[in-house]
Amino acid sequence: MPELKNDRFLRALERQPVDRTPIWIMRQAGRYLPEYRAVREKAGDFMTLCQTPELACEVTLQPLERFDLDAAILFSDILTIPHAMGLGLHFVKGEGPRFSHPVRDRRAIDALPRPDAETDLGYVMDAVRVIRRELDGRVPLIGFSGSPWTLATYMVEGGSSRDFRRIKGLMYEDPETLHRLLARVADSVTDYLNAQIAAGAQAVQIFDTWGGVLSPATYREFSLAYMQRIVEGLTRESDGRRVPVILFTKNGGQWLEAIADAGPDALGIDWTTDLDDARGRVGERVALQGNLDPNVLYAGPERIRAEVERVLAAFGHGEGHVFNLGHGIHPQIDPDHVRVLVDAVHELSAPYHG
Amino acid sequence: MPELKNDRFLRALERQPVDRTPIWIMRQAGRYLPEYRAVREKAGDFMTLCQTPELACEVTLQPLERFDLDAAILFSDILTIPHAMGLGLHFVKGEGPRFSHPVRDRRAIDALPRPDAETDLGYVMDAVRVIRRELDGRVPLIGFSGSPWTLATYMVEGGSSRDFRRIKGLMYEDPETLHRLLARVADSVTDYLNAQIAAGAQAVQIFDTWGGVLSPATYREFSLAYMQRIVEGLTRESDGRRVPVILFTKNGGQWLEAIADAGPDALGIDWTTDLDDARGRVGERVALQGNLDPNVLYAGPERIRAEVERVLAAFGHGEGHVFNLGHGIHPQIDPDHVRVLVDAVHELSAPYHG
Repeated sequence: MPELKNDRFLRALERQPVDRTPIWIMRQAGRYLPEYRAVREKAGDFMTLCQTPELACEVTLQPLERFDLDAAILFSDILTIPHAMGLGLHFVKGEGPRFSHPVRDRRAIDALPRPDAETDLGYVMDAVRVIRRELDGRVPLIGFSGSPWTLATYMVEGGSSRDFRRIKGLMYEDPETLHRLLARVADSVTDYLNAQIAAGAQAVQIFDTWGGVLSPATYREFSLAYMQRIVEGLTRESDGRRVPVILFTKNGGQWLEAIADAGPDALGIDWTTDLDDARGRVGERVALQGNLDPNVLYAGPERIRAEVERVLAAFGHGEGHVFNLGHGIHPQIDPDHVRVLVDAVHELSAPYHG
Repeated sequence: MPELKNDRFLRALERQPVDRTPIWIMRQAGRYLPEYRAVREKAGDFMTLCQTPELACEVTLQPLERFDLDAAILFSDILTIPHAMGLGLHFVKGEGPRFSHPVRDRRAIDALPRPDAETDLGYVMDAVRVIRRELDGRVPLIGFSGSPWTLATYMVEGGSSRDFRRIKGLMYEDPETLHRLLARVADSVTDYLNAQIAAGAQAVQIFDTWGGVLSPATYREFSLAYMQRIVEGLTRESDGRRVPVILFTKNGGQWLEAIADAGPDALGIDWTTDLDDARGRVGERVALQGNLDPNVLYAGPERIRAEVERVLAAFGHGEGHVFNLGHGIHPQIDPDHVRVLVDAVHELSAPYHG
């Protein structure tokens, strides 16, 4: 493998000194980029784009051509594992992902196979290998998965949900059955992330998009416990370098201490928690990633720079900060505003280091 | 006015001794009740139901006929004020509320009238008077409004939103214009709640359904500051008795101290914060209302009782707790499960008092 030319992102995750705060953007390869929309159209449907390694590689690299980003993230969908389990993922225009075969009872759950990551999900590992080759050491590549709880919400509800009534109904009425599902998904996620790491992912992030809809006790029991199980099963070193793990629970600001206890290298923080607060609570144990409200990017350059400065100042001097949005970038954002953001982070962060 | 026969709810809000923990349920008059659906069908459309005081009274009282609830809450919509301002509220099946004339610029905002609560919103005050008469002192009547921020999200977005991009775009790019809107809405909410109190509301709740999508600083500046302005402008006594004010910010668990500082009598708490935690932080200053996950009501009686006990134990011994869900009851809930809930709260709470 070629030497890594820019390792700010990995160094920040290990709370090592950097010259500038590194930045990447959740959903940086996505619909706000016209060149992404062109490839998406060429591919026909979204799953074809995910399942064709050359196309997945192409869109993964697109934002790096435009912006001075410090990491690439594998282009894929968070629902590849349930799809490989046979649930029949498809997308309904304007309504998001849907499963043809949701799982809602013990029998369906016990019948779920444990996918083989290298064969059943080989298109993902091929994409990782192609991207690593094409990156040629420019920046590190992030692999990822949804959290077991988050994947299970889609698997039980059959798609997106506002009230999570089916999975929470199961959780309250028959917690043992839900635990069987979560254990099975957690083992598959562990396999999946380890295969990504073996294929070349240099850091991994677990997206717990829906953990924040739980209560403190059910969050620990049904979401965090399974993320911890994954963290404990991951390969944490590759090519002689640590492979850091980032846990991101959207709306998890009340539980940062517990999340840090699960053993990750870093926590993703959304904008509902200030970074000075988060750093005071867990900054001695983990790095922090975040936390600009994606909606700031609708404003003009002056305001974007002011908000970047505010986020940098909130984390303050010293190491362990990876800049990011607090959630994925919106499709309507002007790419020129993203350039303002990325450049502002590098320019304005220098005084906070060294 | 007839003497109040059951004042547990008002006493708990004042942190005075009660024999049992009082309970009411957000959206207790609603679609989960077949008798509600019958009246709703008779009315034709939802706005007719809201705007016909006798029908609003009928559905307000329905849950009290079935369950041993300790308060009634005015049946109305949270968007009556923007409707009275001329935005043209209507409902699109399966998509919720919509405004024909959203306000998105300074000119539209400056042109908004300040509705006269007794005339432009006279149907609400008539409903309050009819309900008080029909309640005949059984339990107190709660009046309510949406918070200025929450109302403004609908007014600017034109309806429900997932990402709040229009109002947050305005907030970040032109905060002064948004402040003009919020100030205007706050003054109208103050008028509206004071008129409800004059008409007979014995407590009021401000629903800040969408405050939790803000950052700590923007929450204080764009949501909490305007709730505080309302609290400071409210009539706090009527018929020689205090009229308590409850502030409920969904997903506001990180900011309870700041919300308590705004001067309410009680805070609504959702299920993402435990009541022992909340009580430890603000329980010396305010009562707490909540906080069962509405999804618990999909489970069977045994589990419902266990979760009620858990909530009661979390608050613990002593005064200042009003039991409620952490958000509105879902339309799919079996009314028999609601009976289990209400009876369990009264039965299991006795040991926590006296």
